Amino acid sequence: MDIDIKKLYEIYDSLADKEVIVKGWLKNNRAQKEFGFIDLNDGTSFKSIQVVYEEGKLDNFKDVSKYNVGSAITVIGQVVLTPKMKQAFEIKAREVILEGESSEDYPIQPKRHSREFLRENAHFRPRTNLFNAVFRVRSVVSFAIHKFFQERNFVYLHAPIITASDAEGAGEMFQVTTLGKEKPEEGYKNDFFGKKANLSVSGQLQAEAYALAFKNVYTFGPTFRAEKSNTSRHASEFWMIEPEIAFSDLNDDMQLAEDMVKYIIKDLFDLCPDELQFFNQFVEKGLIDKLKNVLNSTFKRITHKEATDILLENNDQFTFKAEVGQDLATEHEKFLTKYFNGPVFVIDWPKDIKAFYMRLNDDGQTVAAMDLLVPGAGELIGGSQREERLEYLEKRMEEMNVHDEDLWWYKELRKYGGNKHAGYGLGLERMIMYVTGVDNIRDVIPFPRTPKNCDF
Amino acid sequence: MDIDIKKLYEIYDSLADKEVIVKGWLKNNRAQKEFGFIDLNDGTSFKSIQVVYEEGKLDNFKDVSKYNVGSAITVIGQVVLTPKMKQAFEIKAREVILEGESSEDYPIQPKRHSREFLRENAHFRPRTNLFNAVFRVRSVVSFAIHKFFQERNFVYLHAPIITASDAEGAGEMFQVTTLGKEKPEEGYKNDFFGKKANLSVSGQLQAEAYALAFKNVYTFGPTFRAEKSNTSRHASEFWMIEPEIAFSDLNDDMQLAEDMVKYIIKDLFDLCPDELQFFNQFVEKGLIDKLKNVLNSTFKRITHKEATDILLENNDQFTFKAEVGQDLATEHEKFLTKYFNGPVFVIDWPKDIKAFYMRLNDDGQTVAAMDLLVPGAGELIGGSQREERLEYLEKRMEEMNVHDEDLWWYKELRKYGGNKHAGYGLGLERMIMYVTGVDNIRDVIPFPRTPKNCDF
Repeated sequence: MDIDIKKLYEIYDSLADKEVIVKGWLKNNRAQKEFGFIDLNDGTSFKSIQVVYEEGKLDNFKDVSKYNVGSAITVIGQVVLTPKMKQAFEIKAREVILEGESSEDYPIQPKRHSREFLRENAHFRPRTNLFNAVFRVRSVVSFAIHKFFQERNFVYLHAPIITASDAEGAGEMFQVTTLGKEKPEEGYKNDFFGKKANLSVSGQLQAEAYALAFKNVYTFGPTFRAEKSNTSRHASEFWMIEPEIAFSDLNDDMQLAEDMVKYIIKDLFDLCPDELQFFNQFVEKGLIDKLKNVLNSTFKRITHKEATDILLENNDQFTFKAEVGQDLATEHEKFLTKYFNGPVFVIDWPKDIKAFYMRLNDDGQTVAAMDLLVPGAGELIGGSQREERLEYLEKRMEEMNVHDEDLWWYKELRKYGGNKHAGYGLGLERMIMYVTGVDNIRDVIPFPRTPKNCDF
Repeated sequence: MDIDIKKLYEIYDSLADKEVIVKGWLKNNRAQKEFGFIDLNDGTSFKSIQVVYEEGKLDNFKDVSKYNVGSAITVIGQVVLTPKMKQAFEIKAREVILEGESSEDYPIQPKRHSREFLRENAHFRPRTNLFNAVFRVRSVVSFAIHKFFQERNFVYLHAPIITASDAEGAGEMFQVTTLGKEKPEEGYKNDFFGKKANLSVSGQLQAEAYALAFKNVYTFGPTFRAEKSNTSRHASEFWMIEPEIAFSDLNDDMQLAEDMVKYIIKDLFDLCPDELQFFNQFVEKGLIDKLKNVLNSTFKRITHKEATDILLENNDQFTFKAEVGQDLATEHEKFLTKYFNGPVFVIDWPKDIKAFYMRLNDDGQTVAAMDLLVPGAGELIGGSQREERLEYLEKRMEEMNVHDEDLWWYKELRKYGGNKHAGYGLGLERMIMYVTGVDNIRDVIPFPRTPKNCDF
């Protein structure tokens, strides 16, 4: 029977002494005179299996003993239980067939490679332990997010990627054009969309329209920033999840975010225990305790003012000094999660440092925004209750110089059945970095895009 | 208790005479002197509920009777079973609270609106019956696709959206740039990525790299075409699903596609019966029979030559005459599905009309490609076994004038452990059009992008 290695690990007991067919890539080949050992991985499992092959039992023993790392092979052999060994079973090969050869200059050898080197070999890096684990976790987390919202009857909305609006002000935008070099004098009239078009930085505004029809919706799609920041936390292209809930306020929003974070982590413990062990041992010591702590805590909720007061009392510890009415620096965020020994929502932010669409609180000074800070990473999620009162919204747009004719429809949402609603954004990559301990965003995106880098 | 209308329809029996709180949008308000009726929908269900309110029982009876269509309201009232009426229950209101007003010029009135008008009101159209159903189905189908692949242990890969490669030749591409109007003489050296960058037309090539590490992978993301086709079947931005499977050939590929299509349809019958009934009645008569027929058939497999022979015998019926070695026109595709009374895979296509990466068959003339044709729609899925032999691949690239330095890594996949692999692409929108009967792609995309149209 043809079997995946994942399945084999689940049922090897019942297959004792039976013959199986396994296909995968050779990760290591230690040949001696009379017999040899192959580490075989097929990508369905973090774990590899050991294949034993013997002179005399294999017609092509000599050839097999020379198969290079990276070769694709089919192994037909017997499952032999080895309860006293490190691995619980091995495959005694009756036949080994070469499906795709490799050569000695295969870049991924069984040794430590630098992350930089592996980025340059992004087409091969998922065959390494680290990236096998990272990208399976990325898949499992993505699906957990879908499951979470679908179980709650949220409608999944594909927000547009190409947009003519640039009002969100979340950052520099990429332009989308077909004009090429023959850019005419008339500007964008002759361009594909008849006006300037950009890659979206957020699907929130469109999600609001859909929340005001379906009650609960979420987006899950790529977003873009054209900032020339070459840091370990910035990428030009990344994926965001943006739920939006109608008839709901900031408290409902925070509860949803807390439930979602816990749901994701719980799924990971259920579905990727080997991967988490690996990260815990080789990438971030203490990762498993950190995640368990999140699972078991009730997320704290404090106002931005309360947070600032705490920071001011401890200002001698910071490089960037905390100030009243200012944004939090990363070191402040980390301090607060340590201070409370767990995740913290910071709410009610000064309106001047937040976006135009956030709902003005009754004090006239703060908005109903929230940032979720988590131990070890700082901000993981940002959200707010939205300004549903047209006159307030228009005033804020005026104040913040948001003049965008393309937002007529966004204002209309406030005129016809608009109501109390809220939402948040989760950067998928930030979540993956948090649950794996991997500290460079380039290493949690299959083929990352950054300034001057668009390879593969 | 606060309850969604979806839930209410599930458990109204057990709530007889109990009080509930329901929030939603007023779809119709028929007020008489002593009492009135409100149709209320909250977007969680295709179905609305009827709210009855009475003078004397409601302090604000006069106000409520004037609430405009589109208003957001909270209703507190008693569940009253009405087994003899059209609807199984209604809500007797004790209190009706205005959450967000609407006005008389609300565009979505309880009458028939043209599809064109609703496109111009894309922010409100999900509040209509048709688009409520279409976009819930889009969400349910999207999740069914994720479930299908995740249950089979496929890894979900986010293929890059911005790409420097334009080798796929699937169509015109959008350019992504930050150069703006100051386009320098040196070309793209000063552009954000240091070279010409485009929006991806397919994630397949990158999915191949990941299939050769994880065995089974799939993408699900937006793709783009800059073609100036203003037809009911073309959009500039749409979503594609592209599975890729290693150690697999064209037969495995077809089996996967058949299983997926049936899985999606089965989930739809389970989860969206009301929506399907609605489409069947008002959008495409016979839709349900069409879908059931797909569920119950084994998809036929014929070669392109066999298909052509059948068409040639019936050439008098076609506007575009069939010819040996040529692509199939839409009328040919429809004829074939009628001829076989069910879905048909057409395989082994002439190499000259297919892409460079498809595996050359032993006849040297055809490639291991497949198109899945379905009754009523024609081509739904296109796929192929990939050319895993480097020398053949290079020859095909030469023949087809694919000269792309950016594909060095794609060739390397053939040098190091490349093996027999295959995959296909499903356009999400085509699937949604097929299962809803909606015949314009603009009406299955929340905010569609087409030439000269980038609104919302």
